[in-house]
Amino acid sequence: MASYEDVMSLSVRRGFVWPAVDLYGGLAGFYDYGHNGVLLRRRWEDLWIETFLGLSDNYYLIDTTTILPEAALKASGHVDHFTDILVTCTRCGESYRGDHLLETVTHEEHEGLTTEEIDARIRDLKIRCPNCKGILGPARAFNMMFPVGIGPTGKDRAFLRPETAQGVFLNFKREFEALRRKLPMGLAIVGRAYRNEISPRQGVYRMREFLQAELQIFFDPATFGDVFPSTEIASSSVRVAWAGEKSEPVAHDFPANELISRGLPSWYVWHLVQVQRFYLESLRTPRASFRFAELDEKERAFYNKIHFDIQVKQESLGGFKEVGGVHYRTDHDLKGHEAGSHTKQSVTFGAAKVLPHVLELSFGVDRNVWALLDLSCQKKDRVVLQLPPRLAPVPVAVFPLVNKDGIPQRAEALYATLRKRMPAFYDDSGSIGKRYARMDEIGTPFSVTVDHETLEGKGVTVRERDSQKQIRRQESELASSLERLLSGEASFLA
Amino acid sequence: MASYEDVMSLSVRRGFVWPAVDLYGGLAGFYDYGHNGVLLRRRWEDLWIETFLGLSDNYYLIDTTTILPEAALKASGHVDHFTDILVTCTRCGESYRGDHLLETVTHEEHEGLTTEEIDARIRDLKIRCPNCKGILGPARAFNMMFPVGIGPTGKDRAFLRPETAQGVFLNFKREFEALRRKLPMGLAIVGRAYRNEISPRQGVYRMREFLQAELQIFFDPATFGDVFPSTEIASSSVRVAWAGEKSEPVAHDFPANELISRGLPSWYVWHLVQVQRFYLESLRTPRASFRFAELDEKERAFYNKIHFDIQVKQESLGGFKEVGGVHYRTDHDLKGHEAGSHTKQSVTFGAAKVLPHVLELSFGVDRNVWALLDLSCQKKDRVVLQLPPRLAPVPVAVFPLVNKDGIPQRAEALYATLRKRMPAFYDDSGSIGKRYARMDEIGTPFSVTVDHETLEGKGVTVRERDSQKQIRRQESELASSLERLLSGEASFLA
Repeated sequence: MASYEDVMSLSVRRGFVWPAVDLYGGLAGFYDYGHNGVLLRRRWEDLWIETFLGLSDNYYLIDTTTILPEAALKASGHVDHFTDILVTCTRCGESYRGDHLLETVTHEEHEGLTTEEIDARIRDLKIRCPNCKGILGPARAFNMMFPVGIGPTGKDRAFLRPETAQGVFLNFKREFEALRRKLPMGLAIVGRAYRNEISPRQGVYRMREFLQAELQIFFDPATFGDVFPSTEIASSSVRVAWAGEKSEPVAHDFPANELISRGLPSWYVWHLVQVQRFYLESLRTPRASFRFAELDEKERAFYNKIHFDIQVKQESLGGFKEVGGVHYRTDHDLKGHEAGSHTKQSVTFGAAKVLPHVLELSFGVDRNVWALLDLSCQKKDRVVLQLPPRLAPVPVAVFPLVNKDGIPQRAEALYATLRKRMPAFYDDSGSIGKRYARMDEIGTPFSVTVDHETLEGKGVTVRERDSQKQIRRQESELASSLERLLSGEASFLA
Repeated sequence: MASYEDVMSLSVRRGFVWPAVDLYGGLAGFYDYGHNGVLLRRRWEDLWIETFLGLSDNYYLIDTTTILPEAALKASGHVDHFTDILVTCTRCGESYRGDHLLETVTHEEHEGLTTEEIDARIRDLKIRCPNCKGILGPARAFNMMFPVGIGPTGKDRAFLRPETAQGVFLNFKREFEALRRKLPMGLAIVGRAYRNEISPRQGVYRMREFLQAELQIFFDPATFGDVFPSTEIASSSVRVAWAGEKSEPVAHDFPANELISRGLPSWYVWHLVQVQRFYLESLRTPRASFRFAELDEKERAFYNKIHFDIQVKQESLGGFKEVGGVHYRTDHDLKGHEAGSHTKQSVTFGAAKVLPHVLELSFGVDRNVWALLDLSCQKKDRVVLQLPPRLAPVPVAVFPLVNKDGIPQRAEALYATLRKRMPAFYDDSGSIGKRYARMDEIGTPFSVTVDHETLEGKGVTVRERDSQKQIRRQESELASSLERLLSGEASFLA
């Protein structure tokens, strides 16, 4: 349990994530990754790819441009509908997101209101500018995409993509033809997206430039339920909060079949089970800190028919917070691009022509990295970052007990050997206690010390971060032993 | 040997790289990566990281925002100097890059000319608009960065970064403090950069959105030569073309010591040797197709004091083409940010305060992927992509010889086992010859066939892409055997 300041302080001190461009006073909504942050993020990404691309051998990773032309984003609906409501102070010119302005006053969520509804509530609640107490101007829709002009005249209008998904939709048909010509087919992108947030004041939670990991699954609605049958999830239960109870810190365990009998498609519930398994088993999120939160029609994005947020409870962010979503986008996107490009997007599958529907598994990578830091950050007299071992940026550290008697040479040789198999860190400065503490702060699960007994052929000590217990291991078997511990094949004191 | 059309045709057909947004008529200078392209690129990136971050244990990967504020890019010199010369037709409005316009007429390079010099040559050579024969307007400097307005008013001016390097410089001091506080320290980014090219007509070679892999090595000039001593490269020679002979397809082998005696710093030559080794040994670039090409003062970017391009000869691009560069940037960048931010960038190292100098190893990832495709593409009666085995997107394919007699079940079981260790592809459609041909096109080095003898315990056949020879292997030892072949530890017919 740690506050936002605790987690951010650790994060800055040890090079995970920090505010970008601080040399020039910072840039609101932008964050950089330091040396440990990149390693942690890459491990999360690798695990995500392994898990979700592993759901089928017809799922693939692609990568597409972050700049997209206006025509494509007009067809997808983003030029007209990807808006937030902006309220500007008539005196000081400060800008506010309408729903957030209401939230700060009423402490309730106000998603999905129209400009007229926001104006009415500002009037009724007599809200003034929080900055200067001036009178607020009328609410208006503000498009959240960053425009980019291409070419010397800038006449080719384009935007930074607001989601990775559109790059996938634009490539769907070409990939379908280049691949097995079978449905379901999955195309995933791990990459940047951009949103010109009106006033990003929630730290890392609301970034203007951020990373998404999104898998778009293209399917034939007539047969999708057979591919991922409900029999496979009969014994599973899923943690859910319904639309009406999202502001409460609640989650109910529903048997998968009950969710299906309440009207969710069986393939949708099948994927909820996989996502939940990713969090509870691979990322080791405590069960009580995980839930799917339903969004109702007013709250959902314009392209979603069924939408549950993936939420993780985080002390640093004040409760359950969205880290992703499971979105049934129907055939909205392919239909839009079919109309926009005047090019058929249906494909021949089996005996029929099908315009595939899309199930999107969407994850905010930065939000997931932050959630890992939040949940792992144990602060008592000092900070221990209890990351799942296979996600730790540096899985092992090597220390010489003393800097004499040939011990450093022996430790350096061991370090050189380990480094060929996994990232490792060598540290010979300060007391052993201080060195353990430094590794605990970046979540290194195992620290190895070379001492005088090592020189006598009695191996090295291996200290586990969480139990603080030590065992001895021969140097020759150390790398394999650590690999088994990191993968979870072996446990430390067994 | 293959033409641009040959390589692009293969690339599109098999999902490596293709023009982006073709559904809406394309977007000049933008390309997407398909399923095989992403895998190939990731393998190149992993090898790059392993090689160059492996040069020291004080080198790290970081990741920073692609949007940077104007103040930072003003201090770096990009707002004032990152320009190309633009010539616009007074009649049809078409835009041209001045030097390229002269090149198409004279077939010589014209880098580094001023606007006045370009105007003079256009006048002397009586050049008209290639599009409409109209009169060309006066040459003018055109900034190649894409502007981006941040926030609802867009008043916070920013740009898409023109190189990853600046993100590193902005984080240098913070990382120095968070890390070992030692020089040399290296910080690398693999990420996107953006340049608003005036008229990108050279296909994949000149992209407006592209990927860079750049390592910035911060060093103390007083001691850098001791860290990477010339004794380590005494027996090496380096392939070089001097500034005056770049337009010729020549390269001279110079002993490292001779380059040092001609005035290049020993640490600079040391790094040329490492880069050359990466190409010749890891990427298997033929020696005759590799060289470093010197840039003279007029051709170099404004921040470089010593600059050799890394070039690979590519049939598809008409000869030696730049895929990267080794740049001695001096203390230009840290000095600029020190002045721009009014914050000291010097650090305490040893007994002294040092403002580090920077050696940049810079690589265009897309250009390197293309060079791999070009060099690997062998076109005779059909295309075989002879990629180095460890770079192949799909290292192994599994085929059932026939779709009966229990052979598919046995093949699927083998496929499932292999997939846990490496990417694999299962194919049961068409003749075995056709299946081999499909895998040859994406460079899969080994194809495994399950046949009737397999059922009798006699193992499976393994066919090598390049020799087209076959051996039999037991299924139980197949995965390990393939791993040794892919890493180069074992050879196929040994």
